[in-house]
Amino acid sequence: MQTLLLGPDAVERHADLPAVVDAVSAAFAADARGNTIMPAKSYIDLPEYNGDFRSMPAYVHAGEWDAAAVKWVNVHPDNPTDHDLPTVLGTLIYSDPETAFPLAVMDGTNLTRLRTGGAAAVATDHLAVPDARSLGLVGAGTQAYTQLEAIATVRDIETVVIADRNERRQRAFVEHFADRFDVRAGSIADAAGCDVLSTITPVESPIVDREWVGEHTHVNAIGADAAGKHEHDDRTLQDAKLVIDDYEQCTHSGEINVPWSDGLLDDDDIYGELGAVVAGDIPGRERDDGITLFDSTGLAIQDVAAAHVAYTKARAAGDGTDFELVGTETT
Amino acid sequence: MQTLLLGPDAVERHADLPAVVDAVSAAFAADARGNTIMPAKSYIDLPEYNGDFRSMPAYVHAGEWDAAAVKWVNVHPDNPTDHDLPTVLGTLIYSDPETAFPLAVMDGTNLTRLRTGGAAAVATDHLAVPDARSLGLVGAGTQAYTQLEAIATVRDIETVVIADRNERRQRAFVEHFADRFDVRAGSIADAAGCDVLSTITPVESPIVDREWVGEHTHVNAIGADAAGKHEHDDRTLQDAKLVIDDYEQCTHSGEINVPWSDGLLDDDDIYGELGAVVAGDIPGRERDDGITLFDSTGLAIQDVAAAHVAYTKARAAGDGTDFELVGTETT
Repeated sequence: MQTLLLGPDAVERHADLPAVVDAVSAAFAADARGNTIMPAKSYIDLPEYNGDFRSMPAYVHAGEWDAAAVKWVNVHPDNPTDHDLPTVLGTLIYSDPETAFPLAVMDGTNLTRLRTGGAAAVATDHLAVPDARSLGLVGAGTQAYTQLEAIATVRDIETVVIADRNERRQRAFVEHFADRFDVRAGSIADAAGCDVLSTITPVESPIVDREWVGEHTHVNAIGADAAGKHEHDDRTLQDAKLVIDDYEQCTHSGEINVPWSDGLLDDDDIYGELGAVVAGDIPGRERDDGITLFDSTGLAIQDVAAAHVAYTKARAAGDGTDFELVGTETT
Repeated sequence: MQTLLLGPDAVERHADLPAVVDAVSAAFAADARGNTIMPAKSYIDLPEYNGDFRSMPAYVHAGEWDAAAVKWVNVHPDNPTDHDLPTVLGTLIYSDPETAFPLAVMDGTNLTRLRTGGAAAVATDHLAVPDARSLGLVGAGTQAYTQLEAIATVRDIETVVIADRNERRQRAFVEHFADRFDVRAGSIADAAGCDVLSTITPVESPIVDREWVGEHTHVNAIGADAAGKHEHDDRTLQDAKLVIDDYEQCTHSGEINVPWSDGLLDDDDIYGELGAVVAGDIPGRERDDGITLFDSTGLAIQDVAAAHVAYTKARAAGDGTDFELVGTETT
């Protein structure tokens, strides 16, 4: 039996965002209904290389489909300067849960980017005002592109404001989307006033003031992924209807981790998990909600969902490379 | 950059047992010296498929080399009858710890078989009498072949007794090794009287009586891999110099787990971990030791060690298939 190999281009080609958004939504709903298994991430810290590995196994039963996978991913901040490699590299093994046969091995880097955009789109769909037309982005790296593409699948985005201290990156973003959106470079305050705001920076001191955030803005807080990181004013978190992806991960390494450990936020400040909103257990946006904020840390179930899309569509299209990776002889 | 793909035949070709035994030995010594990182296995139990997945990440710094890997493996007992697939299928991602680049993705099924044989050989080297010439094997499945090949790298095995209720499997084993060893079919009692005994059956009630075990026999207890399984008489475990691979795993799912949970064995009955013996912290075989028993559950560091051999030798030989699996563009 053959395992399908999908490199970064094949993942990009087949894990199209509308399908990824749907699959990630189904995974969050499955999670709320108890139809997922997601052990805590295992960390291997390697201070001698200023890096770490994480293994992220999960199983999702989304009704129409089920799947299991493990993603093996890292954070090595010295990679770009010392090795001309990205900080984060991911590889994922996607398996049939009935037999455990590894159906596919695929690039986990593009997959992570797409499933992160997918979660923001799912949150935006449930938490932004229905007629949201403007999107602000803080940080013009690769994820900013994915945020725009993903969120545009759930709202009719017309106006985009991109904020980044790096003018070259800011300009490149504007040029990339100029023929599809009314897109312009702006300040963080300009971006924060939009109907939807996604922040995607690795900062350890907040850069988005409470006063800058629009009256009914929905915020996707994407950047914080480790203890000590946060992008938003404590007062924004205190005032917002706060939706998290996962309690353990958010309180330890998400946007809320710093005010949480400082005692400025506690359980009473958390409205609920995104899965509960998607499943309909608790309402999403309500008329007088004001600011909503989604704290995204990234869950293994999102990887399973995005991998399901990539594998299924690539297989159907006859794309990818077949390889006899594991022995299937029985004795 | 290219990731090297190694299917089951390539793993078999390059992970030769003498090198695997050395690498597994180095990994155990590294473990005793605190030069490994091995998070607990994560389990995904899927009772609806009568199966489970396990993710096994680890890092080993063995002095001359270091490496990180995750093995994604399962136990699906219905696979052979329902799907014409093995009960256990493994896939492993082998990474450079300095950059986290996935150097190889390889078959984990053959690899598991080889590293399990490797651990038994390391234990036999330190715990069997130096002039051991006879090896008894209980269970004539695939692992029996590997036990003989591996143990023959550390002792001059001349005589082999193979015990199995399945006469066809027993005969096949005898025929396979007839021109290299004085090998014969025999009873469990015959096998247990040899200088070295490896037991490789999934039984839940002991099948090796205390009285059958030779006066100075070294036992490799390989079969038990889950709570409720054990192959040996409680009295053998009580009388033996008992060496384990890992405290948590052995007390929960190894040969000792049943008498342990019955209160028949406790900490005072465990001599030590194999790593401590290999590192020289505690002696291995001493003249008047009588029976020694190694409880093998299988550690992720063994997988890393065997994968290191497979990758290094395949790369040096120009074997395997290169594939651009993960994106390495920096932005």
